[in-house]
Amino acid sequence: MPQTKFLLSENQIPTTWYNVVADLPKPLDPMLHPGTREPVTRDDLAPLFPEALIAQEFSTDAEVDIPGAVIDVYQQWRPSPLVRARRLEKALDTPARIYFKNEGVSPAGSHKPNTAIPQAYYNKQAGVERLTTETGAGQWGTSLSLACQYFGLICEVYMVKVSYRQKPYRRGLMETFGASVTASPSELTEAGRAALAADPDSPGSLGLAISEAVEAAVNSGGTAKYALGSVLNHVLMHQTIIGKEAQLQMELAEDYPDILIGAAGGGSNFGGLVLPFLGEQLRGGRPVRAIAVEPSSCPTMTQGTFDYDFGDTAGMTPLTKMHTLGHDFVPPSIHAGGLRYHGMSPIISQLKEYDYLEARALPQTACFEAGVTFARNEGIVPAPESTHAVRAAIDEALACKESGESKSILFSLSGHGHFDMQAYIDYFAGKLKD
Amino acid sequence: MPQTKFLLSENQIPTTWYNVVADLPKPLDPMLHPGTREPVTRDDLAPLFPEALIAQEFSTDAEVDIPGAVIDVYQQWRPSPLVRARRLEKALDTPARIYFKNEGVSPAGSHKPNTAIPQAYYNKQAGVERLTTETGAGQWGTSLSLACQYFGLICEVYMVKVSYRQKPYRRGLMETFGASVTASPSELTEAGRAALAADPDSPGSLGLAISEAVEAAVNSGGTAKYALGSVLNHVLMHQTIIGKEAQLQMELAEDYPDILIGAAGGGSNFGGLVLPFLGEQLRGGRPVRAIAVEPSSCPTMTQGTFDYDFGDTAGMTPLTKMHTLGHDFVPPSIHAGGLRYHGMSPIISQLKEYDYLEARALPQTACFEAGVTFARNEGIVPAPESTHAVRAAIDEALACKESGESKSILFSLSGHGHFDMQAYIDYFAGKLKD
Repeated sequence: MPQTKFLLSENQIPTTWYNVVADLPKPLDPMLHPGTREPVTRDDLAPLFPEALIAQEFSTDAEVDIPGAVIDVYQQWRPSPLVRARRLEKALDTPARIYFKNEGVSPAGSHKPNTAIPQAYYNKQAGVERLTTETGAGQWGTSLSLACQYFGLICEVYMVKVSYRQKPYRRGLMETFGASVTASPSELTEAGRAALAADPDSPGSLGLAISEAVEAAVNSGGTAKYALGSVLNHVLMHQTIIGKEAQLQMELAEDYPDILIGAAGGGSNFGGLVLPFLGEQLRGGRPVRAIAVEPSSCPTMTQGTFDYDFGDTAGMTPLTKMHTLGHDFVPPSIHAGGLRYHGMSPIISQLKEYDYLEARALPQTACFEAGVTFARNEGIVPAPESTHAVRAAIDEALACKESGESKSILFSLSGHGHFDMQAYIDYFAGKLKD
Repeated sequence: MPQTKFLLSENQIPTTWYNVVADLPKPLDPMLHPGTREPVTRDDLAPLFPEALIAQEFSTDAEVDIPGAVIDVYQQWRPSPLVRARRLEKALDTPARIYFKNEGVSPAGSHKPNTAIPQAYYNKQAGVERLTTETGAGQWGTSLSLACQYFGLICEVYMVKVSYRQKPYRRGLMETFGASVTASPSELTEAGRAALAADPDSPGSLGLAISEAVEAAVNSGGTAKYALGSVLNHVLMHQTIIGKEAQLQMELAEDYPDILIGAAGGGSNFGGLVLPFLGEQLRGGRPVRAIAVEPSSCPTMTQGTFDYDFGDTAGMTPLTKMHTLGHDFVPPSIHAGGLRYHGMSPIISQLKEYDYLEARALPQTACFEAGVTFARNEGIVPAPESTHAVRAAIDEALACKESGESKSILFSLSGHGHFDMQAYIDYFAGKLKD
């Protein structure tokens, strides 16, 4: 029987994260303070993040040790499987070899715990008692809930009110993991009260939820900090555990990816898979073709500009040099909530700008069609975000069929869609718009 | 770092199922025809099942070969992990060693595909075109949907109408896997039409859905057969893949279970884990203590009689000798839908009657409490059915703490609760009754 799953034992979990900043073609442009427009200092970030994470954010070391206590937790589900999608290959009748790295096996059902766990750990080490954060679709809030539970921290999640109402199961999951979940806008913060005063029926937004979570941390007198689930350098670095494992697993498969594919919202899942391979290339090793897939309704890299912009809607965060559609861009309400962000990780943005990776925008119905094909062959219903990677992988495999080439394609299955079945129901009912 | 997960590679999947019928203390009492009350013949079952499955139902061979095409599919998620619940042990401060076999990693999120896959395979081999079945909570319907998809069969699921309305995500999952799902009672069968004539607003019942699925198969002119997800001998045999893998994994852990625990509705998950170990004991090997956990609201083994009874409400199925609360028993609507069955597998019933295993009835709120403790330590939200096994495992571990004994406890985590979060939400809201 030909091998399907390439598994590593838990003592093969990589012991360092990879920091691509050490190998980038040129230094990253500095973050700028929103008030002074001067480069942000470590002290500027201290109210939000513990020192260890700030140090990682500014680090230029290529390899950063993963603490033993973090590896202890990673062991519950890592190394995640790398799977050869043999049934899918057969259904497509392609000569391509299709692999996927399945991050859906984590407690939250996505890659997000890879950074939630170390973020909780470093905050606990720094004496922090509470972490605040925002969540839209719920993947990040779920991950931070469990991470806080494991390290004895209180977790306060501001969940966009419309999601809070539409996704009670995600909320239930966060509460099962021990978090307190508040619908945003709330009465707990000035930002929330102002929004409610302006519109008592406000459905909320991710930008507003960020403002509430940040305010709650900043006004905590030092007992609470804030946690962010994507975009930042340290977040992408934590996610490189995905690609580092995949490198070992491709060796087990006696293969090497010609094409790497991931969906990109803030860039942490895509970066997590791709950066260790791209780092090889940047250091003179084997080149790879890397494709970041975004929704055509929020085409940050394919249509945005590469410029300084704010991370939030209100313009309170530092400015970063990145691909952006403008911080006041309001993406349409597509089902892949994790991909509805106006900006992009500065690291991914620079690599795109210097042509080390490609970006591709795809419409959601084509992505769900691919998601269904994947589910019917591989037995896993992909998260709406992940269907973007599936679509691109299938398209590349079909291109191989056309050309007769047998390429090796590796994509990141960032998560499962168990909490997003309404999107599939809407797809089958013909209710999805592109 | 002490080891947490005991993994087997896919070429270590057992190549035979174990059939405990070969080793039972006495032969099973025969099934009786509902009309004649004479022992059922193979011909009697031919309208419902293909020959190969009927042969397995009557088989007394101890080991039965698993077809290569079935192993091919098992490889997508099997062998399932055997996990040492180290964080849970620490939280309980128990000297016990707690292991669980995680069947939640399957495409359907439970153990049910272990039998759905071979049932679809044997039907395809026999030239069957369609499979009909019923589903309540949806685990079984989901599993058969995917199995039919893989082997090119049409799958028709009769879903109890109240579940059809309350669990749209389960329905969405079945449709994603390619099944057609019909709310029962339906207009498609005589049984359904009669029920609707009597009560157009009938919420349906599992017994009625069985009647519809059976009728659809019997009246198909041989193109369709029926599939059942528990209770029958061949179903329990297919599930022994769980226990056979666990035996190999306990060797990797250099340990042997003193206590085996599983939740029991129809008995297939419990039997799947326990029977290979109990078979060792029946053949003179090492004894184990096996505990079947049922809900106190449907106490089949702890309160029922051991006698001949029908499998369905209407009295149309063969009579089997089993523990039963009476085929007209209507269990209260508890959240663990998979445990709401008036009867019990004849194999499990006999082993209980002859004291080879214990039965224990537990109230649901205590089970959900244990489920939350498990989720907060092991990162997995158990299905409501599985929380019964978790509760018993925790109770045994706490008994070890009391007595100072360091026992080895292995329980079956039959599935995850991603599609059952409403039960947890109700639990937190104090809405669950015992």
